[in-house]
Amino acid sequence: MENYLAFIMAGGGGTRFWPKSRKKTPKQFLPIVGDSPLISQTVERLCSFAERDNVFIITNEIQKPGTIERVKLQEVNVIAEPFGRNTAPCVGLAAIIAQVKSGDDTVVGIFPADHYITPVEEFDKTVEQAVLLAEKSDSIVTIGIKPSHPATGYGYIQHGDTVDGCKVNSYKVKRFTEKPDIDTAKNFLEGGGYSWNAGMFFFKAGVVLNELKNQQPKIYNLLQEFKNSIGKADEADKLCEVYEKMPSISFDYAIMEHATSVHVVEATFNWDDVGSWAAVSRHEKMDENGNCIKGDAIIVDSKNNTVESEKTVALVGVENLVVVDTGDAILVCSKDNCENVKEVVEILKKEKREELL
Amino acid sequence: MENYLAFIMAGGGGTRFWPKSRKKTPKQFLPIVGDSPLISQTVERLCSFAERDNVFIITNEIQKPGTIERVKLQEVNVIAEPFGRNTAPCVGLAAIIAQVKSGDDTVVGIFPADHYITPVEEFDKTVEQAVLLAEKSDSIVTIGIKPSHPATGYGYIQHGDTVDGCKVNSYKVKRFTEKPDIDTAKNFLEGGGYSWNAGMFFFKAGVVLNELKNQQPKIYNLLQEFKNSIGKADEADKLCEVYEKMPSISFDYAIMEHATSVHVVEATFNWDDVGSWAAVSRHEKMDENGNCIKGDAIIVDSKNNTVESEKTVALVGVENLVVVDTGDAILVCSKDNCENVKEVVEILKKEKREELL
Repeated sequence: MENYLAFIMAGGGGTRFWPKSRKKTPKQFLPIVGDSPLISQTVERLCSFAERDNVFIITNEIQKPGTIERVKLQEVNVIAEPFGRNTAPCVGLAAIIAQVKSGDDTVVGIFPADHYITPVEEFDKTVEQAVLLAEKSDSIVTIGIKPSHPATGYGYIQHGDTVDGCKVNSYKVKRFTEKPDIDTAKNFLEGGGYSWNAGMFFFKAGVVLNELKNQQPKIYNLLQEFKNSIGKADEADKLCEVYEKMPSISFDYAIMEHATSVHVVEATFNWDDVGSWAAVSRHEKMDENGNCIKGDAIIVDSKNNTVESEKTVALVGVENLVVVDTGDAILVCSKDNCENVKEVVEILKKEKREELL
Repeated sequence: MENYLAFIMAGGGGTRFWPKSRKKTPKQFLPIVGDSPLISQTVERLCSFAERDNVFIITNEIQKPGTIERVKLQEVNVIAEPFGRNTAPCVGLAAIIAQVKSGDDTVVGIFPADHYITPVEEFDKTVEQAVLLAEKSDSIVTIGIKPSHPATGYGYIQHGDTVDGCKVNSYKVKRFTEKPDIDTAKNFLEGGGYSWNAGMFFFKAGVVLNELKNQQPKIYNLLQEFKNSIGKADEADKLCEVYEKMPSISFDYAIMEHATSVHVVEATFNWDDVGSWAAVSRHEKMDENGNCIKGDAIIVDSKNNTVESEKTVALVGVENLVVVDTGDAILVCSKDNCENVKEVVEILKKEKREELL
């Protein structure tokens, strides 16, 4: 589709995938699920609907070279933020680039780099609906995921009035609720009319720039300062100059909470944010005992384990474990505690063990 | 003590200690418990009571060089059986060597290579009693371990009449029962008057040779054939020649079951046969959560685990596991299933994976 630009936000670390994920090989560089790095899968998925030259990645300086290696995009489409300033400046940067490239009415799609989504046909169908709605309604459109359980780790979107004439179920957004407690989450599920926020946004460049102008004038003004350098020799220097002054604030908090008009399109695709090692076995092949093995394993009386190793791993009488070996470190984790792998990284940081970070 | 020869039987593999134990590094070569290899600990323990020149090891050709490396004994004291023929020929070999060295009345002690025993003073006290009793009574004397639980993996010795005038409780042996079922074992413990058989035997050389002559004439005759070559140039060739013809039979079955006179001395020392990885944590230092770590480990919400690794191991939310890394293989095993580690070795054998055996 022309006049549509897709931006992938790819600056995360994914410390819950230690020891595979490291500073220089963050989660999106790894084929955690599937055969290629998550970032490559994301780019190829987006290229099904967007033109390849219109797919961009916003990452950071450290990850830029590794990103370029892993994706089939022109180098110029991989942009490095000079400083991490949370998501609002990043979305603003996407909007201003889109505006300069093809005007206020260009539709911008914002996507996480490291989610697992199938099938691509349904993804395209949902995205097309979101793009059309963003174009038609001058609103910010999100994609909502049908909740499968009362998760407390996601934001929830409450549906308002149905938007008529849409091929995919679409609603006005009544309210956003960030990571609710378990009772609230249960109530949402029982009552119905809620989606998970998957962190995907669609809007006309002019619409979000206008929201920034009203709600976050500091970000807006810095983007205006940068605007004239886009595509010029001083682009990188100017970006550095304005980013240093950028407030660090999330797009949800800075814009979404008080945005003039917000819609949600209900995803028709399968979605997994691959939040921890526990996600792997949901998508990979398993043996008859539910063991999911990448590498060589010898299994005695063991079930429902996930193993990822270049060397031989023997499991004897164990259940529900994740075992990951990277040559320099080994993780043995209960599947019910995969979230806490990030605590290992915290300890390594405290102990300044750079070689394992 | 003079006129007493100690023989260590050190031909086992200890497949339950895979991946640490391999063909060339069997269990007794490893510091599974304590700071030195179990075979070194055994030699040093025996040298407390026996003269160093009177301590012998009977091993096999493959393990002989590694044994010599690990013990402070003269090379001539490390004897290699050319073929594995179970324990009866091995005990016979010890007896005939002792007879040639210092006559029929020499007391021979037979010891496993890979048990963990403390303190050495109590061990000496028990051994002294066994040696004195073997000398005085012309019987075969065993050492009995007070059973701590109804184990089904050991042989049980039923006590008969008390032997008077002993510094350590000693009895005539009423009956041997090999590995009983759990109900029988429970009855033994409830009734009292039983010991575990620790595989240690004491006897005058002449007494056992006489038993062999009566009960196992084939073994006896082959030993007589070998006798004249002991200490001669053709010793190794002759040993090979007679061993090829040796029946393969255990000492318990070949001799003990029908021996003329058998006594048992109740051990005053602490004993552990270090039967599997689960034994390690019984003797090594632990952190406040019961984790026993050799190497570098990062521990998050995990307790009662045993880790042995040269590289960093992170445990997250796991309990009661043994994790062993050897650079080429990793074992993750439930402590309740450590016996089954030998099944991993069986699988490796079937798959002819020599590099891991």
